Amino acid sequence: MSDLSREELDEIYDFAIQLGKDAGRMLMDAARLRMGATGTQGQKEHVEKENAVDLVTETDEDVEAFIKNAIAKRYPSHKFVGEESYSKGASRDYLIDDSQTWCVDPLDGTVNYIHLFPMFCVSIAFIHNNKPLIGIINAPFLHQFFSSCHGRGAFLTSPNEPNSQPLPLVRNPIPPMPANAPSKCVFSCEWGKDRRDSPDSNLHRKVESFVNMAAEIGSRSGRGGMVHGVRSLGSATLDLAYVAMGAFDIWWEGGCWEWDVAAGIAILQEAGGLITTADPPEDEANAPIEEVRLGSRLYLAIRPAGPSATETGRQSQERTVREVWRRVRNLDYSRPGA
Amino acid sequence: MSDLSREELDEIYDFAIQLGKDAGRMLMDAARLRMGATGTQGQKEHVEKENAVDLVTETDEDVEAFIKNAIAKRYPSHKFVGEESYSKGASRDYLIDDSQTWCVDPLDGTVNYIHLFPMFCVSIAFIHNNKPLIGIINAPFLHQFFSSCHGRGAFLTSPNEPNSQPLPLVRNPIPPMPANAPSKCVFSCEWGKDRRDSPDSNLHRKVESFVNMAAEIGSRSGRGGMVHGVRSLGSATLDLAYVAMGAFDIWWEGGCWEWDVAAGIAILQEAGGLITTADPPEDEANAPIEEVRLGSRLYLAIRPAGPSATETGRQSQERTVREVWRRVRNLDYSRPGA
Repeated sequence: MSDLSREELDEIYDFAIQLGKDAGRMLMDAARLRMGATGTQGQKEHVEKENAVDLVTETDEDVEAFIKNAIAKRYPSHKFVGEESYSKGASRDYLIDDSQTWCVDPLDGTVNYIHLFPMFCVSIAFIHNNKPLIGIINAPFLHQFFSSCHGRGAFLTSPNEPNSQPLPLVRNPIPPMPANAPSKCVFSCEWGKDRRDSPDSNLHRKVESFVNMAAEIGSRSGRGGMVHGVRSLGSATLDLAYVAMGAFDIWWEGGCWEWDVAAGIAILQEAGGLITTADPPEDEANAPIEEVRLGSRLYLAIRPAGPSATETGRQSQERTVREVWRRVRNLDYSRPGA
Repeated sequence: MSDLSREELDEIYDFAIQLGKDAGRMLMDAARLRMGATGTQGQKEHVEKENAVDLVTETDEDVEAFIKNAIAKRYPSHKFVGEESYSKGASRDYLIDDSQTWCVDPLDGTVNYIHLFPMFCVSIAFIHNNKPLIGIINAPFLHQFFSSCHGRGAFLTSPNEPNSQPLPLVRNPIPPMPANAPSKCVFSCEWGKDRRDSPDSNLHRKVESFVNMAAEIGSRSGRGGMVHGVRSLGSATLDLAYVAMGAFDIWWEGGCWEWDVAAGIAILQEAGGLITTADPPEDEANAPIEEVRLGSRLYLAIRPAGPSATETGRQSQERTVREVWRRVRNLDYSRPGA
């Protein structure tokens, strides 16, 4: 998977953790200024909400520049892919290759951050040979810090907790996926920005899929999934973190970019979760379930699952993937130039 | 509003805050046991997820009994209305009258708690003359503690923050509702438990309303609202807390009981928010906007809003209420016996 030594990877992990802490503090300090409160730097400033969008863009760029500079200083040979620097570029070809690459979203959940809804975070991934090896997600207003390193496990750290908690949280034993999933599952999904009302728009494809997942068993020509709950947080990164935690059983979404998901995928895979494509294949009952390619923009994540008397954990995850595919429509998110 | 003295009310507030802290600790201790971690009592226990629902019911009942007993001891003349004790009773008539009454949900966001998704809380309200005067919402896994007392303001307290933060968070000045609300608003809503697929079911009435709020401006015969984001947390209580905070601009929901909303309404009103009925009246453009009656089961909440050059805060809230009413369907949640 990687020709990095254990020692090298651990050292990069330590560096990434500190980077996530510092970047989270920057996000929270800027949020506090908007609340008219005192930041950790001691300034006190009153800012009106009319300027919130501009202020947030500025913070987003500041945090990305901070992370990018810190990486360039410590690891000058590493490649850097960030949301802010990238969206100013021209092309959006597949961004990740075999290089040692940092893939960073300085602020995921931008709408939440503008409104000061706590579901926002900084997301930092280290990738080698196309594989996310380290993931850091810091949600400072939630006081939740997620981290993982290949071979070291995935963890949630909170203040006032004596220790980091390994993910998934329920693990003695890790429960299998429910026998009749998606029933009894918490289903996480997002409405997104594409709100066109045409009959075949992503909005309507999504809503039809959501309703199939939610409706009572037996309804909708057998597609009713009667999930336990439907949740929408407005942050792809935190959706993935909560799947890794085991709190969400299923996350299905289209339109994400690499920086939205890279750290979440690292944490989810290290915790034992499965991630594949959101797009149902033609032969959904038998098609191979392949690991998703970073950059596909279409994601279906299943939480870590343990064995039951009749299935391995992986079998119960794959069964759930097929049950989701049977209920969702394909989405239309191509890559420019792809 | 109340013939209680300032001193009496402040004393009840102090008692309620301590109750909320203790109850939150009970919820979090029980959650930690399910994670196989050590509770603050020092026990260590491993519990399988198959039993999660039973364990959660037990915790729910334990926490309610704790709160009920503490109130009975300190204020023996006060009435108590709690979710767990009530759902074992026969009738569900309007529960709140002129008495000094505690209205308690020991665990709101039950599905979230079962799955250990952090959006769960204990909710404690003190009501007199039909008016919620004190509200306490403790979400221990989020490290967020909301509280309010009539005449004293509403607050969010978090660990690692030097001070409680007054609500709404952005307040110098408090921004008015956006000029073209619901555009630029974060819209919070819940899918609920009624998942019947019939064309006139609550599921379909809700989904049609959600899509109207989300779809681009100009679509859906002028009903497209193009909200900034759609969020679903699975906790009516926390939805209200985030409206009071100013993080959610609009919350629209049906089917809640008194204990789901009493503390949230106290906090929202003390912060300057508006709460009225979810049910659009026939003359939605001109009907009076009345304060909702606890027990109506249909709620529309608008965040605190300040004045603009052309409107008072209240005017911008009322304008938003009418714009929501124009886009939503009435829901079918009657009270048994009503």
